[in-house]
Order: sequence, then structure tokens, then C-alpha cells
Amino acid sequence: MTDTYRRILLARRPHGLVDGSDLTVDDGAPVPDPGDGEALVKVQFLSIDPTIRTWMDDAPGYLPPIGIGDVVRSGGIGEVVSSRTDALPVGSTVFGMLGWQEYALVGGADGSMTVVPPGIDPAVVLGVLGVTGMTAYFGLKDIGKPKSGDTVVVSGAAGATGSVVGQLARIEGAGRVVGIAGSEDKCSWLVDELGFDAAVNYRTEDLGARIRATCPDGIDVYFDNVGGDILDVCLANLAMRARVVLCGAISQYNEDRPVGPRNYLQLIIKRARMEGFLILDYLDRFPEAQLEMAGWVMEGRIQHREHVVEGLDRAGEALNLLFSGGNTGKVVVRV
Amino acid sequence: MTDTYRRILLARRPHGLVDGSDLTVDDGAPVPDPGDGEALVKVQFLSIDPTIRTWMDDAPGYLPPIGIGDVVRSGGIGEVVSSRTDALPVGSTVFGMLGWQEYALVGGADGSMTVVPPGIDPAVVLGVLGVTGMTAYFGLKDIGKPKSGDTVVVSGAAGATGSVVGQLARIEGAGRVVGIAGSEDKCSWLVDELGFDAAVNYRTEDLGARIRATCPDGIDVYFDNVGGDILDVCLANLAMRARVVLCGAISQYNEDRPVGPRNYLQLIIKRARMEGFLILDYLDRFPEAQLEMAGWVMEGRIQHREHVVEGLDRAGEALNLLFSGGNTGKVVVRV
Repeated sequence: MTDTYRRILLARRPHGLVDGSDLTVDDGAPVPDPGDGEALVKVQFLSIDPTIRTWMDDAPGYLPPIGIGDVVRSGGIGEVVSSRTDALPVGSTVFGMLGWQEYALVGGADGSMTVVPPGIDPAVVLGVLGVTGMTAYFGLKDIGKPKSGDTVVVSGAAGATGSVVGQLARIEGAGRVVGIAGSEDKCSWLVDELGFDAAVNYRTEDLGARIRATCPDGIDVYFDNVGGDILDVCLANLAMRARVVLCGAISQYNEDRPVGPRNYLQLIIKRARMEGFLILDYLDRFPEAQLEMAGWVMEGRIQHREHVVEGLDRAGEALNLLFSGGNTGKVVVRV
Repeated sequence: MTDTYRRILLARRPHGLVDGSDLTVDDGAPVPDPGDGEALVKVQFLSIDPTIRTWMDDAPGYLPPIGIGDVVRSGGIGEVVSSRTDALPVGSTVFGMLGWQEYALVGGADGSMTVVPPGIDPAVVLGVLGVTGMTAYFGLKDIGKPKSGDTVVVSGAAGATGSVVGQLARIEGAGRVVGIAGSEDKCSWLVDELGFDAAVNYRTEDLGARIRATCPDGIDVYFDNVGGDILDVCLANLAMRARVVLCGAISQYNEDRPVGPRNYLQLIIKRARMEGFLILDYLDRFPEAQLEMAGWVMEGRIQHREHVVEGLDRAGEALNLLFSGGNTGKVVVRV
């Protein structure tokens, strides 16, 4: 073990994509010893999620902004290397908010760390069976509430959450599942491997025309990960009493002044609703959902991909992938 | 009876407020004789509603656009002057889509006309006990679902719908009722006569600061009649699990390119929903609601005002009042 460890600190608030000068690589901090009730975790993988970008802004959100000079907040998975709590024994693998750093000191009593059973791929813990998969599960089932035969559309469909949403919609009995993604490869993956009925490449195709063609009865459930023009096109094509699930807005997180959906008055014409949710509210229901999801994963009914970026120093670059569309599936950083 | 009658036709689609050249006054049509199953109605009052402006645009809506050269579509009340249907006897007062004209030929069998019991003020039939009042009733109760103690905010609060929403919220047990309106006189009416806890003059006051001051626990139910900046301020001040009722957007109906709510991602942070509705879906529940409302009106718990504009020729001007804020309460035209 080295005496000091590497941490990525927020040096200033980014405008647009994160660039190198927004972050500081700090190698000066000594590796701490756990106090009573604490454990030291060697971070192995980081979960790279769009919401991290929102925490970098000085704007009101569901969590406080990351402070300037603080370690970038992030979910992660790691191994307990020293411990003064029975809840987190040495050698155990834990998941929680570990941050963009090589070591994290965590408190055993606050319940914020989850011990991961042995033998599960860390990328799966962070992805399909983790917060990402749970976001798809509860967002679709609790907010979208698809009924048998419904047309379900998801944007960011080749992303970690979107790809699970589409497959879950199929399992829930949706009549049509349509994904919106940004490349031919992604669209092929959705249709050929994940069983989507159709996928639209919003970068090269006329999105409105293709949504009208693939959703002739309108959209009953639209799961929105992107906001912006894509949200507007979907609002213009809602079915009566549609549900728009607001999960995120990756098209907007890098804008200093986000735009709102111009077509929101379609919610009146279609007697429809647009509703947001946060996965934090569902933590106590994770076990049941994870059990169900694990079964579908083992049966091959839910497929998943991980996009592994090597090296803590590349965490900022990994985050940018989510906004440039450079990833398919879950982005993780191997520390 | 004259041989011809006056009609106001849509000459072209307005940009912004309606001006004289958007409408044609036509005096050339002969007064028709009712055919079998039809009745001829002499129009007495027109209901002037913001939605009429949306029908003038060539845009997808919940009803087809008014055709160029067609009589402007409008609710109204009138007296049957000749009839070839038992459903609409001569001398009866009827309510329905009569249009901006002196006479309307209506079909008795299609159920679109409602016979009004004798002795009720026509302005009340068009206002608090009519579609306007019903919009407030079902929008608030079915979509807003205020709970006891909730903070309810309504925009366009001195308008026909908004003024009823605030009073209904009080009856429903809201903890705070706050109105947003555009003049001191309107704000005084809301607080001094209608029992609102507070009213904010959005033209002269800092709306955000006043909403934060008058709604210290955030907004549980926001009933939106206006859209635009006011919607954004309210979105920024939602309480957890708030409901935003989309009734209309008078700030946007005259814009060629409407703006969407920039703060819509607050729906995620606050786990809130924004939902639209149309009163057309509630027609079968009008009788129960009208009975309840009539009781509150008689008890003085629901007060109402009408703004009567004299003369069919001034119908376009009357419509513009809704967007300039020139009215308090329900705008009707005496034909």
C-alpha cells in the first residue's frame, strides 16, 4: 500500500462538457486509517452516470452540488482493506458513494454501503442489477405503468438505463417497443439483439416521420433520458392518456440555459402526464426488484453491455462519453 | 325577423392578438328555416374563452381548426325561435356551440345543445355553473387533487376559471391559497372578497420572491392557466410530489413559436407531475358538479363576476381582453 492516494477533485464548475482544467488530479492525500466504526475501501470500479454532471453545477438539485475542491461524487464498488466495523469486514466487496478516488473511508453504521455477495461481476452490480437497472425498473413500472399492448418509446435507448427499459417493456407486455439512439450500430443492437421492434437513429433519420411510422397509434409511454428536441417530437406523438417518464435530460445537462419542451401543451390535448422520479425513493424496494431482474438476466431475457474505461484519470473523459453518445450500455471506470 | 343575419367569419389566421382584418363581418346570409329535427336559435350571449384563439390556428388540437371563411366557433346561449324537434321547443333557452353569429341552426338529435332551466342568469350558465366553472372544478379535484393543508397556487387567478379554482381550493381544505394576477384591483378582489390568503401582482412584484414568501413550504398544487415565465417560477418552487395542472397557456396562444417550461426538470427533483386535461371528458359528470357548485354559489362561498362586452361586432375585441388582462371574471358578449 502506498502512503498517498489519487483523487479527482472538482477544480471549477464546467461549462458544457468537462475538460481537464475543470478537474484536479491530487496525489498528495495520505491514505487514512479507519476510525472506530469505519472501514477503508480500495475503489475498483466507478459508476459513470449522467447525474454526476448535474452535481457539478451550482444549481438546486436533489443533492447538494459537489463543492469546489471536493472529490467528485460517484457511485462505485470496491474491497474493504481495513476495517473497524463488523458490518464491513476486510475482504468484502461493497457498493456505495465512493467517489472518484483510489481509496474511500466509509462509515459502517450509516447504512450507505451495501455489501455485495461474492461472485457477481462488479460491472453488473453497477449496471443492470444496480442503480442503473433499478432506475429502469421503477421508472418504467411505477411511473410509466405500461399496459398490455401499449406502445413504449425510450430515448437514450442504447444507454445503460434505456436498454433495460426497452427489454423490461417487452417483458411487461408492451405491444411495441421503439428505441431512439444515435448510431447504426446502436440501433442494430437494439433490434437484433435486445428485441426492440424498431430503433430510430435520430442523427440521420427524420425522427418525427419515423416515430409516426413506427408508432401508428401514438406513444403510450415515453421514457425520456434526453430532453430537448427528441422530447418535443415524442410529445407531438403521444397517444391519449400517455405517460411521459422524466428520468433525465442528457441533451440539457451541458447547457448553461436549458430549453423546455415547446410541445408541452400536447399534455392537454392528449390528457397526458409528465412525471419525474428519483431512484433514491425506491432503495427499500431494491431487493425484490434485483431478485426479479437477476432471474431475467440469467434467463437471457435482459441483456446488458458494459463500456469499461481504464484508469481513474479518465473518469472525466468517461463522463463525457454519456453526452457525446460514445458508449453503448453502462459506462464504468476501472480505477 | 330580418331576412338576413350577421355572422363573424374567420378571414385569415391571426398572428398574435386578433385584429379587424382577421375577421369578416358578413350580413349576407339568409336566416335559415330549420329542417326536420332542427331548431333555429337566436343567439343571446357568447362565451369568450382563451381556447377560441387556439382554434384559429392551423395547428393540431383537440378540435379541428376553424376553417377560413367559417363562423368563429364559440359556446353561447340563446332562445329557440323556431323548431322542428320536440327536444328543443320554441321559447326554450339552450346552451351549446352556437358560434359568433346572430342565429344558429342546431340539430336536436345530436345532443350537443343543453336546455337551460328558466330563471338562471345566462352569464352564470356560461360562467361559474358552465364550462368555465366545471373546468375549475374537475381540473382542481381530479387532476390537482389537493389534500387538506396543501398550498394551492393558481395563475390567471382573477379570470373566470382561476377565481373559481382558488375558492374551490379553500372549500377543499387547502392550507394556503395564493393567486397570481396582473393588477392591484384584481389582487385586492382575490384577497378581500374571494378569501385568497395572498395574491401576487406579477407585473409589478418580484414573482419568485413573493411566491417563496407566501408559500414557505412550496407549492403542492399549481393550477396553470398562463404558461411562460410564471409557469417556470412555480416549477422552481414546487413542494415534493407536487401536481401541476395544465389548464391552458394564455401567455403562449398568441405566439407563433411557444416556449416550453425551462424548469421542467424540477419535476424530477421534486418527484412531481404535470398533467393536462380537457373538460370535454367530464360532460357526463357535469350534473353532480353543477348541483354542488350551485349550492356554494347560493351560500356565497363561491363568488363570481362577469365582464359583459356589448355587441357581436366586438367579439374579437372581447377575445383579446383575455390576453391583455383587461377582464376580471368571465367575459361574455351580449349579441
